[in-house]
Amino acid sequence: MMKKFLNAPEAFVDEMLQGILAAHPTELKSVANDLRCIVRADAPVAGKVGLATGGGSGHLPLFLGYVGKGMLDGCAVGGVFQSPSAEQMLEVTKAIDSGQGVLQIYGNYSGDIINFDMAAEMAEMEDIRVESYVAGEDVASAPPEEKSKRRGVAGIFYVYKCAGAKADEGADLDEVKRVAEKAGANVRTMGVALSPVIVPEVGKPSFTIGEGEMEIGMGIHGEPGIRRGELLTADEVVQEMMDKILPDLPYQRGDEVSVLMNGLGSTPKEELYVAYRKVAEILDEQGISVYRVYCGEFATSLEMTGFSISVLKLDEELKALLSKSAVTPFFEQVGS
Amino acid sequence: MMKKFLNAPEAFVDEMLQGILAAHPTELKSVANDLRCIVRADAPVAGKVGLATGGGSGHLPLFLGYVGKGMLDGCAVGGVFQSPSAEQMLEVTKAIDSGQGVLQIYGNYSGDIINFDMAAEMAEMEDIRVESYVAGEDVASAPPEEKSKRRGVAGIFYVYKCAGAKADEGADLDEVKRVAEKAGANVRTMGVALSPVIVPEVGKPSFTIGEGEMEIGMGIHGEPGIRRGELLTADEVVQEMMDKILPDLPYQRGDEVSVLMNGLGSTPKEELYVAYRKVAEILDEQGISVYRVYCGEFATSLEMTGFSISVLKLDEELKALLSKSAVTPFFEQVGS
Repeated sequence: MMKKFLNAPEAFVDEMLQGILAAHPTELKSVANDLRCIVRADAPVAGKVGLATGGGSGHLPLFLGYVGKGMLDGCAVGGVFQSPSAEQMLEVTKAIDSGQGVLQIYGNYSGDIINFDMAAEMAEMEDIRVESYVAGEDVASAPPEEKSKRRGVAGIFYVYKCAGAKADEGADLDEVKRVAEKAGANVRTMGVALSPVIVPEVGKPSFTIGEGEMEIGMGIHGEPGIRRGELLTADEVVQEMMDKILPDLPYQRGDEVSVLMNGLGSTPKEELYVAYRKVAEILDEQGISVYRVYCGEFATSLEMTGFSISVLKLDEELKALLSKSAVTPFFEQVGS
Repeated sequence: MMKKFLNAPEAFVDEMLQGILAAHPTELKSVANDLRCIVRADAPVAGKVGLATGGGSGHLPLFLGYVGKGMLDGCAVGGVFQSPSAEQMLEVTKAIDSGQGVLQIYGNYSGDIINFDMAAEMAEMEDIRVESYVAGEDVASAPPEEKSKRRGVAGIFYVYKCAGAKADEGADLDEVKRVAEKAGANVRTMGVALSPVIVPEVGKPSFTIGEGEMEIGMGIHGEPGIRRGELLTADEVVQEMMDKILPDLPYQRGDEVSVLMNGLGSTPKEELYVAYRKVAEILDEQGISVYRVYCGEFATSLEMTGFSISVLKLDEELKALLSKSAVTPFFEQVGS
């Protein structure tokens, strides 16, 4: 049965947003009289390219959680696992444009693409220049020869971080888009899940994973993975994931990378670090050095048990951008 | 059955620590050839009072996760839900003392008290001045007239943050202890749980909570709470918790507070914010203003479903200390 802290299930998303706005009133605000159109409290930021995102609820800190200084300017919020509307994306776009144009960064899901494209067209009719970057880096979701079909998952964090830092420096829209594309092109992700999730309005699991089973490559909405099988040891699971991730770019001896160990909801940080121990061992064996490790919950699927590994290949530019300060209600990093 | 990402269950704590040290080599190191004695990589910090903590594993970010700039200097790490040894605490104490003395800050559990007291005696024999602050702020764990019996839970975060910031300013041991006591005296916490946890070496739940039931006031090791009953709505649960927390200090009209919404492991951030919406409403009704909200996982119990609310009454000194910068592998805050 469903054991969640809820009031009316149909009020879940709006009550969550009311809670977020109540908790962070100096950092975030809603616009257009719509709770689901959230922007930085100081938007539009004069002279800065605006960064917009959006997507379904149920993935916090994704997507809304990265709206803040050094990262994004606004987010359109959908129902649980549902795309926000084109109108909501348009309102966010209008609210964050300071005249420098807006870059939309979002995941490769058909509903989001349709609605973001429509929002971009409507914004251009209002003389706002809009560019888009569609993130898709889940190596389990399509083979290398069909990269454009890949789902966007936790690796979008790196796109937000690098593009956000570039926009914060005062770069123009083309430059910010170039950095988003570069970060996106250099990141790969793969996930594994041990349990399904319950969407509050549905009230029961939308799929199942058997006792003692795991699904390698499952998506953050429960999309099928590469294979289902018996639960392996942490080291075996990590080896299987890294064997898919590393050859894909490929990452090579001498590369420097950042690693994001992302909990999908219910997996304790202790287990993420047990898994990272093996990631570090594999990277070391392959002569790949690690500059910075993020470990925690960055892109979740409600209470799913599981985790994903994202690897970002760095160059001097991405490394410098990754190291800059960021302050959002869900993510803070002291710059170095 | 147990569905966790593990290798050998008995290696869980050491492999986790190896993963943490591999992920954060410039920030943390182990001392005394013991993985379970972890200190800042730059310890001892010249001229600064050392802050030590320790406790059982299974609560990340607690305890180890707060070792870093602006917070703690070292941590002795026990097995899952087990106290570290006096010898381990002594080694941490020796490694972080710069000659300014060490303040031990830990939770009110008998094993930790016995071992920390013994470590303090041994350290004093080596001419290290040691003071202690034992945190205990769980209002569900003992009535107001037996405050000294209360368990320490998520509110210890505030003690670390304020005392750590004070030590960072160069304050002496007595001053840092005064701030720890002040923060601890002004914080109250209460939790609620919906599910038990599985200790890896045990392999099955050590207690149960029935389908459709919740336990109000449960401790972070599964200690019994105030009452068990049917799962209420989020608003009803929060009302019951705040009705215990607010009269206890008491918090009064005109007070300014910080609120910590702490997920115990499996509860999505979305639900924490649904709960915070009601916390904000109650505080507003009572004329208590909120300065800063922390919402996430600060003190967990492996994969327990549940959350706790901590409220810290602020004065100008605590507010200033709370606002300072901190950088640990598990917690970053850009100072303001």
